[in-house]
Amino acid sequence: MTVYDVIDRKKRGFALTEEEVRFFVRAVADGRASDAQIAAFCMAVVWRGMTDEECFFLTDAMTHSGETIPCPRLNVLFADKHSTGGVSDSTSLVLVPVLAACGVHCAKYSGRGLGHTGGTLDKLESFPGFRVSLTAEEFEAQAERVGCVIAGQTARIVPADKRMYAVRDVTATVDSIPLIAASVMSKKLASFADVILLDVKYGEGAFVHGGEEAVRLARTMVDLGRRAGRRMCACVTCMDQPLGDSIGCCAEVREAIGVLRGEVRNDLSELSLSHSALLLQAVLGISAEEAARRAQKAVDSGAALQKLREMVAAQGGDARAVDDFSLLPLAEGRAWVRAKADGYLRVAATPLGRACVELGGGRLREEDAVDHGVGLRLLRRTGEAVRAGDPLAEVYFDPERDPAGALSLIEGAFAVGGELPPRQPLVYCTIAEEDN
Amino acid sequence: MTVYDVIDRKKRGFALTEEEVRFFVRAVADGRASDAQIAAFCMAVVWRGMTDEECFFLTDAMTHSGETIPCPRLNVLFADKHSTGGVSDSTSLVLVPVLAACGVHCAKYSGRGLGHTGGTLDKLESFPGFRVSLTAEEFEAQAERVGCVIAGQTARIVPADKRMYAVRDVTATVDSIPLIAASVMSKKLASFADVILLDVKYGEGAFVHGGEEAVRLARTMVDLGRRAGRRMCACVTCMDQPLGDSIGCCAEVREAIGVLRGEVRNDLSELSLSHSALLLQAVLGISAEEAARRAQKAVDSGAALQKLREMVAAQGGDARAVDDFSLLPLAEGRAWVRAKADGYLRVAATPLGRACVELGGGRLREEDAVDHGVGLRLLRRTGEAVRAGDPLAEVYFDPERDPAGALSLIEGAFAVGGELPPRQPLVYCTIAEEDN
Repeated sequence: MTVYDVIDRKKRGFALTEEEVRFFVRAVADGRASDAQIAAFCMAVVWRGMTDEECFFLTDAMTHSGETIPCPRLNVLFADKHSTGGVSDSTSLVLVPVLAACGVHCAKYSGRGLGHTGGTLDKLESFPGFRVSLTAEEFEAQAERVGCVIAGQTARIVPADKRMYAVRDVTATVDSIPLIAASVMSKKLASFADVILLDVKYGEGAFVHGGEEAVRLARTMVDLGRRAGRRMCACVTCMDQPLGDSIGCCAEVREAIGVLRGEVRNDLSELSLSHSALLLQAVLGISAEEAARRAQKAVDSGAALQKLREMVAAQGGDARAVDDFSLLPLAEGRAWVRAKADGYLRVAATPLGRACVELGGGRLREEDAVDHGVGLRLLRRTGEAVRAGDPLAEVYFDPERDPAGALSLIEGAFAVGGELPPRQPLVYCTIAEEDN
Repeated sequence: MTVYDVIDRKKRGFALTEEEVRFFVRAVADGRASDAQIAAFCMAVVWRGMTDEECFFLTDAMTHSGETIPCPRLNVLFADKHSTGGVSDSTSLVLVPVLAACGVHCAKYSGRGLGHTGGTLDKLESFPGFRVSLTAEEFEAQAERVGCVIAGQTARIVPADKRMYAVRDVTATVDSIPLIAASVMSKKLASFADVILLDVKYGEGAFVHGGEEAVRLARTMVDLGRRAGRRMCACVTCMDQPLGDSIGCCAEVREAIGVLRGEVRNDLSELSLSHSALLLQAVLGISAEEAARRAQKAVDSGAALQKLREMVAAQGGDARAVDDFSLLPLAEGRAWVRAKADGYLRVAATPLGRACVELGGGRLREEDAVDHGVGLRLLRRTGEAVRAGDPLAEVYFDPERDPAGALSLIEGAFAVGGELPPRQPLVYCTIAEEDN
């Protein structure tokens, strides 16, 4: 068998055997498959698709292409959550302390931002001194002592996915359900979480544009997780406009803290708490109503905010920032983008995410540095009636850097029309843990 | 516009604009497009195909991605022939001297062998001292003085094709009509031939397996050439079994000389002379019958053989080899492969071509060295009745090198069955120069 043979069979539309899939993934991990061969394979999968069996073999082979993370020696169930990537999506920063405050352990590996979507690790590094690189011992000790920890995965986890994703990113082969599902689930299954919530985004700012396609992706990933013995639940949620109102590291951390203080009530707070409740329900075996009540209580009592302080301090960060936003400084340059006409507003997520990258707050390449202070705050949202001249967004930029390109992207993110745009529901559907 | 955008649009099934195609080819030539991006593009073309317009833009952009070869300052029409690659196909070694002997100039750039197909340059280097690297001045002077010359193209010709072909070769993206057509025709159009004959192979040993698909490929290439102002004709011919009886450099040169001496009469001699006649007809404007008569006369009179001697001598080779085969030595090891049962024989071309590579007589990678003496001679052909134990092939191998792998490939090339296999006609169809 050769890498060429596997590509050729997929190109011809055959379902690959377990042996063929495992052979290919090994060749990706050990370098025998070239980038060109990986690209051709991925495009052939975009074309021909994969059966559930093929997708499971791909996921399993990728999961075991490198090291897997052993479960901490604690006799508890660990919860985890994964979002397929959105703009102004800081649900993890809310959900993790809420779960810990409710007694559910959450020891989570997260990623960095790439392209127009932000990354949890970058946001956490807004806390002065925060360390995302922990040893296995530190990770385990913090999970036991604090009940929550968020750190970066090592390069030794799913190396096959790392190579495949880098190739897919530049070859227009990201938007394939089996490839997305195998990429996401191999990383989740290389870790030890017992109960996993998947938040699958659809809409303008997501990899998947239609709701039904997102449901198919969610079902595929839930099935992969269950087949691997994990308890799975999923939400399909809309990413037409940014989830929260803030974009940029410090701005998003401030907004998440606002949710934990009970001060911010918007789509971000709604989704963070409903995600938390879904996981509480699954882990604790309680009703949906009781789970929602406990999540809300963790916020109202200040217990969740206290867990955030503990987590930040445990990872070397300055926990005073939770209460003193001057320690989460925004860039000093200010500009406002205003409505150009009277009418109903429609906001697009992608150009706003891109604008944040353009301001220096995100990454085009993995090695790019991130400016935590830049970003923007959305002042009006889709469906609101606006008048020409109304401010729509407040922009935070580095005065040493020309914001013109970013401002033009932000202007393009707003459309004002005579008709009320159809409002997509925030949650398109939910797959509960016990559903099949 | 980015390379990513072009891949994405082709993936989604759009016809690319002229601007998009030219942008992509420039990015291939100047290195902005990565191998992974080229592979994804090629797989998307295999999937979605290309319109005639797209294919013309691709061919034209590739033709002009590097230097083009200026026409020698001779007031004559130049003929050229291209085969899409076969096993034991030495028609060029016969056709070029026959045309020259009939007064038609043939100044031809050829390639080296790769994979299971042989290359004209490797075969010519069987003549001791033969030089395939000529300066433009040497090339032109020989074309004028001798009437025929065969040399290697410089790396500066169609660099975009060189990169794309290297990627396609390892990514199972060779067998796409628009990609094959653009690759072949860009190389032909970067040179100056006025009248071009294309020999499109189909069958077991060819890139294209079906006759009708080969006709579509031939029509596509003929149209591309005509659109670029060249006079075009084409043959679609069968490559189920090797064309001639010899495989390997010295062995094939000996067989081609045998055809020019009038001593060898087989599919190789039939096709070489009918190809020659097609080009004579097109260049000289004579009837098919008259053309066939002149080609045969060039052989019978010894004039073609004399042209071969002149061409070999002009390029520094030892022309005595034309008359003294001890100067074209075969490897000293001998083995015979024999029939395993009684019945009708069926011979497959590809494993025999691969066996020659395995013996050291071909290339797996461009930088591999070629052993000119190794190879084999086919003693029986498809459709012949054989008895168990009958010798089917005589193998020439280097006694220092174990021939077991090659012998096993050769054994696998022969199938003996109870039924007479259907005999495909050698020439499936012909597109004459004046046809439209």
